Amino acid sequence: MGEVERKKIIIDTDPGVDDAMAIFIALRSPEVEVIGLTTIYGNVYTTLATRNALHLLEVAERTDIPVAEGSHVTLMKATKLRIAEFVHGTDGLGNQYFPPPTGKAIDQSAAAFLVDKSNQYPGKITVVALGPLTNIAMAIELDPTFPEKIGQIVILGGAFFVNGNVNPAAEANIFGDPDAADVVFTSGADILTVGINVTHQVLFTDADLDKLAQCRGKIAQYLCKILGVYFSYHHDAYSIKGVFLHDPTTFLAAVNPSLLTYTEGVVRVQKCGITRGLTMFDDAKKRYGEISEWYDKPKVKVAVTVDAPEVMKMVMDRLLE
Amino acid sequence: MGEVERKKIIIDTDPGVDDAMAIFIALRSPEVEVIGLTTIYGNVYTTLATRNALHLLEVAERTDIPVAEGSHVTLMKATKLRIAEFVHGTDGLGNQYFPPPTGKAIDQSAAAFLVDKSNQYPGKITVVALGPLTNIAMAIELDPTFPEKIGQIVILGGAFFVNGNVNPAAEANIFGDPDAADVVFTSGADILTVGINVTHQVLFTDADLDKLAQCRGKIAQYLCKILGVYFSYHHDAYSIKGVFLHDPTTFLAAVNPSLLTYTEGVVRVQKCGITRGLTMFDDAKKRYGEISEWYDKPKVKVAVTVDAPEVMKMVMDRLLE
Repeated sequence: MGEVERKKIIIDTDPGVDDAMAIFIALRSPEVEVIGLTTIYGNVYTTLATRNALHLLEVAERTDIPVAEGSHVTLMKATKLRIAEFVHGTDGLGNQYFPPPTGKAIDQSAAAFLVDKSNQYPGKITVVALGPLTNIAMAIELDPTFPEKIGQIVILGGAFFVNGNVNPAAEANIFGDPDAADVVFTSGADILTVGINVTHQVLFTDADLDKLAQCRGKIAQYLCKILGVYFSYHHDAYSIKGVFLHDPTTFLAAVNPSLLTYTEGVVRVQKCGITRGLTMFDDAKKRYGEISEWYDKPKVKVAVTVDAPEVMKMVMDRLLE
Repeated sequence: MGEVERKKIIIDTDPGVDDAMAIFIALRSPEVEVIGLTTIYGNVYTTLATRNALHLLEVAERTDIPVAEGSHVTLMKATKLRIAEFVHGTDGLGNQYFPPPTGKAIDQSAAAFLVDKSNQYPGKITVVALGPLTNIAMAIELDPTFPEKIGQIVILGGAFFVNGNVNPAAEANIFGDPDAADVVFTSGADILTVGINVTHQVLFTDADLDKLAQCRGKIAQYLCKILGVYFSYHHDAYSIKGVFLHDPTTFLAAVNPSLLTYTEGVVRVQKCGITRGLTMFDDAKKRYGEISEWYDKPKVKVAVTVDAPEVMKMVMDRLLE
């Protein structure tokens, strides 16, 4: 990259099979410098997310990157969490039951780490948020100027004008902590959110898995092991032979926004009832006669289309390295 | 129509400018026999809806058709109603302040009338529901077998995978009584619902208004008078030169279902919070891992596309008669 400054990235993650892919891709992306991982519940409980984050950095031989453990409860302190172990395996990594990592998380919470780094590199950090948004919301609570100081928050979250993946209304990351998500979406930060309406367009197929299997690389071999459960889940839930690359797509969008098109507007999150966790985007085609909950709130960028073939090319190039 | 049995129609209505159009079109539709109007709040309060329904039948010289007054409160007895007089005028009919009708509503509630007629003509009645669904839900409460005995309920309601028209989440008729709507959608009746995702495709333009103005017919002349306020509202709210034909489109869909394509699935209505009144359709593309509020509920038909030119042709043919 020569003199070009690499984008500083913090990945907030709940690994998770596709989190693992995204992290490996990130570590092989010359455009960015991963300056930390923060962990959150979602695909697994937070304790296991931290363990998996440390483990993945050890697999990638990048133990120089700090891991800051995130919240074990939602923003509103709920302890009953929705954990998607039926998607990723009970260990979050395809039921491979890897030995515990030797490293440890740093002695700082995810929220404190996020605030610290935003102070250290104001306007320079991109947070790639791959799980429920609790840590990000807590960073905003900890420091109300965090939204101004953070460069961009690129979120995997929401189901815009399509059904959700937890139920018809809600996507898993937003469903995991709707209160946190609403805080983040209305915080005024520079936000790009990539919903499943977009990530469902990026399918890693059986044929791609074969290519990975034929590669002798350590990361490729590792991913082949953990992808089995994730493939089975997709086959059962969607009747497809392939898996959605939610997290890698979102990470690559953070690296190269031109992989996406997006629209801008206000996003609010439903917090109660049967559509709890629903993300509602105001497309601003109508001037409503009554003041709504969307009125006068900061706008965010909502991904609309994705160059799926180019995303897949980047994914394969980086994983087959 | 010779020996062919005409479809028996009850129009549940909150007139309303486009309700007036739909009623006039219905009275000029040889395929159907309008056996009654039932009234509801929405565009106006119920008292005024009843007055307007009687007035419109007098204008059309069809005072043989009974009007049954509907509920003045929501299914949950709320008296704070959302009334869209800023769309239709404070009189509901374009601020023309017509003299009161001479006729009176029958001595039977809308819900009782609906139940009675469903008993009299089991399987033969089509209810065209153009306002909040309170009366229909009350008919179901009054007689739990109403959903089996009614032929079809064709609803103008919902915003499926698009923004609403009250706020980004909710369409006006469903927002008017979300509890009633959820009762109706999950009742097991044969239901076709036509949302604003479909009715926004049917635009009655300035040019159409000119054609109406050039017609000497009493109904055409009458409609030209009342359409001004409705046009102004659309110009202000949507920056369009034309008005959406919500109610006429829904009525014509009841007459001729081939004007639409539809999909089938479960619809649930959000009852609380910022997306109160949102209609969420489960497109059944995913088998959810967890039991959702959509699981095992009766399916309804949800309109997806409309042959707008043909609808407009039918509208103009019948109004220019």
